[in-house]
Amino acid sequence: MTSSDKLALKLHKQFHGKITIALRDNTELTKERLGAYYTPGIGAVSLAVTKHPDKLSTYTWINNLVAVISDGSAVLGLGNLGPNGALPVLEGKAMLFKHFADIDAVPIVLNVHTADEIVSTIQAIATSFGAINLEDIAAPICFDVEDRLKKILPIPVMHDDQHGTATVTLSGLINATKLTGRKLAQCKIVISGAGAAGVAIAKLLHKYAAPDILVIDSRGIISRNRNDLNEPKVQLLKFTNLDNVVGSLADALLDADIFIGVSKPNLLTKQMISTMTKDPIIFAMANPNPEILPSDARAAGAAIIATGRSDYPNQVNNALAFPGIFRGALDNHVKEITDQHQIAAAEVIASLVKNPSANKIIPSIFDKDLVPAIAAVIR
Amino acid sequence: MTSSDKLALKLHKQFHGKITIALRDNTELTKERLGAYYTPGIGAVSLAVTKHPDKLSTYTWINNLVAVISDGSAVLGLGNLGPNGALPVLEGKAMLFKHFADIDAVPIVLNVHTADEIVSTIQAIATSFGAINLEDIAAPICFDVEDRLKKILPIPVMHDDQHGTATVTLSGLINATKLTGRKLAQCKIVISGAGAAGVAIAKLLHKYAAPDILVIDSRGIISRNRNDLNEPKVQLLKFTNLDNVVGSLADALLDADIFIGVSKPNLLTKQMISTMTKDPIIFAMANPNPEILPSDARAAGAAIIATGRSDYPNQVNNALAFPGIFRGALDNHVKEITDQHQIAAAEVIASLVKNPSANKIIPSIFDKDLVPAIAAVIR
Repeated sequence: MTSSDKLALKLHKQFHGKITIALRDNTELTKERLGAYYTPGIGAVSLAVTKHPDKLSTYTWINNLVAVISDGSAVLGLGNLGPNGALPVLEGKAMLFKHFADIDAVPIVLNVHTADEIVSTIQAIATSFGAINLEDIAAPICFDVEDRLKKILPIPVMHDDQHGTATVTLSGLINATKLTGRKLAQCKIVISGAGAAGVAIAKLLHKYAAPDILVIDSRGIISRNRNDLNEPKVQLLKFTNLDNVVGSLADALLDADIFIGVSKPNLLTKQMISTMTKDPIIFAMANPNPEILPSDARAAGAAIIATGRSDYPNQVNNALAFPGIFRGALDNHVKEITDQHQIAAAEVIASLVKNPSANKIIPSIFDKDLVPAIAAVIR
Repeated sequence: MTSSDKLALKLHKQFHGKITIALRDNTELTKERLGAYYTPGIGAVSLAVTKHPDKLSTYTWINNLVAVISDGSAVLGLGNLGPNGALPVLEGKAMLFKHFADIDAVPIVLNVHTADEIVSTIQAIATSFGAINLEDIAAPICFDVEDRLKKILPIPVMHDDQHGTATVTLSGLINATKLTGRKLAQCKIVISGAGAAGVAIAKLLHKYAAPDILVIDSRGIISRNRNDLNEPKVQLLKFTNLDNVVGSLADALLDADIFIGVSKPNLLTKQMISTMTKDPIIFAMANPNPEILPSDARAAGAAIIATGRSDYPNQVNNALAFPGIFRGALDNHVKEITDQHQIAAAEVIASLVKNPSANKIIPSIFDKDLVPAIAAVIR
């Protein structure tokens, strides 16, 4: 057990979780005020929001409220733990929402796991919230769930494992390509992992710069020769692997400029890196252990290395993006978070690093400018 | 628009609702602490609660968390307003939970309305909470929904419109019968209204003292001669109206000791009260306007009068009961709130009035002893 594991168990036991409810109005609750916040006065508020549903965000807490929802089918790098295992993570996310963006967030875990059940459950409770952050839902169901909810619901819905990760990855690549004298549009990019994050990164990079992209899953390069692809992987072939290359990760990396790992520990070798172009960019973001250790990547010639961990430089962390994205969506009454919002957020995040260097391509999560700067472009 | 309506709209607009999220640990969120509350340390907590689900209440906020859930089909006395209209009421209830019992409560409104859909939605999200307060769900669906959820879920479930109302009504009757020299077991009681509250009051009074009870709905006395009764009303005939009396409210009240109204304004006349036994007890609890005005009831000879309103003496208010009942259920790890719990709570509430009088048969909601005294008997 690591020291952060020990501290985690200790703090969670000491405080019994991370969030609590507080009152907005701390004036003494007199009989008169009680009669305004509850019966009989509350009836006037109920009638007002029934007649004018848009007043719900004037009169209730939903103007500042995000539901963080998971079925626990893909918790962190730990897999399908179910709703119990997801709850501490979602409550942690609610804590970050509050701390970094002053957003009220409520963790909701689901004990149903098909796309139909997840969609209908969330649809049934959605009026309770101002926005929805989907979290830790396994691919490929996560794609269908998000697509359908975005169509059905009148509030912003974002699957953070897809779009938060993609946004921060893009922000890191913007500075990494600048530092190594590349143009992203001319790069060959290999993405290892075709789950929620891998698919979303491929889509966002294509939207942003249309580079040459190969995506690899556990059976090799995703190509038209494969007959074992699920629908989201088939869709990737519309804009990746246009030359229909077949082969392994090692084959894919030949002459590649950028490796993006959202897959498994230790998949990437020094030998593979040595076959990439000069000064390659390595984002080894598997959690908790990266596709290659930063020291090994550096020894093999990597110019810039990022991971998902806080104990190495360049931590690609969703928490850089989601607080600001939702702050902006709530404040600016944005009904749908689009690719353009993510690109704008990625550019802002990259721009907050005043003097980018190999060990500093993305800002710190503690950068006070982060949330307001991102929120300003989500409109 | 009344003055409390105006104040309600003003305060709700000023504060944008009534509750907010706060952090339990207000120590500075350093990089180390962030790594304990979120990745990577949170993984150890997720694994611990996956292996030992009972640790969820050690490590997450659910040990102190109630979901207040409604489909908005019976909001206050206003009727079927749907989820929008229910949300301000539920948020008000969450405020009372926090203020009176330091319980975290989250309002969840449902956009589904059949018993099957309500049950499956709540079942799907139940792991997120430590207890469930059903609210403002119309009869007869409310009975089926509560019965099924109590069977399915491993956490306390209580429909407050039924059991909160019944508990506080019983507490008032305990003191009212004492003051008028009656024994509840020997009373003839007429309940006007066979919705959620009326049915639950009848059941609880029967459990407590098995008095002679007649229940009246909009078509008259519920009797075996009726062929228009829904299942919950048929069930009432097992222990009410054993002599199978037929007729109207006026017929029922002849020689009755107690009138309990959870029905409609102005149903009860002075003439009807004059046919009851001497010193009758009148609980006219229709909201916002009672079945008879207290001044008229007094003029007709009523010895003790209670209403649902805060501007008359003896306000029968659910808020006297639910904060303490849920405080006790959470603290004492009670898995099911039973009739015996409600009776124990009613007796405690009654006992907190040190010197009962006609104008003081139940304690004030601001009585500081209320919540701890009730919580102590819910075990």
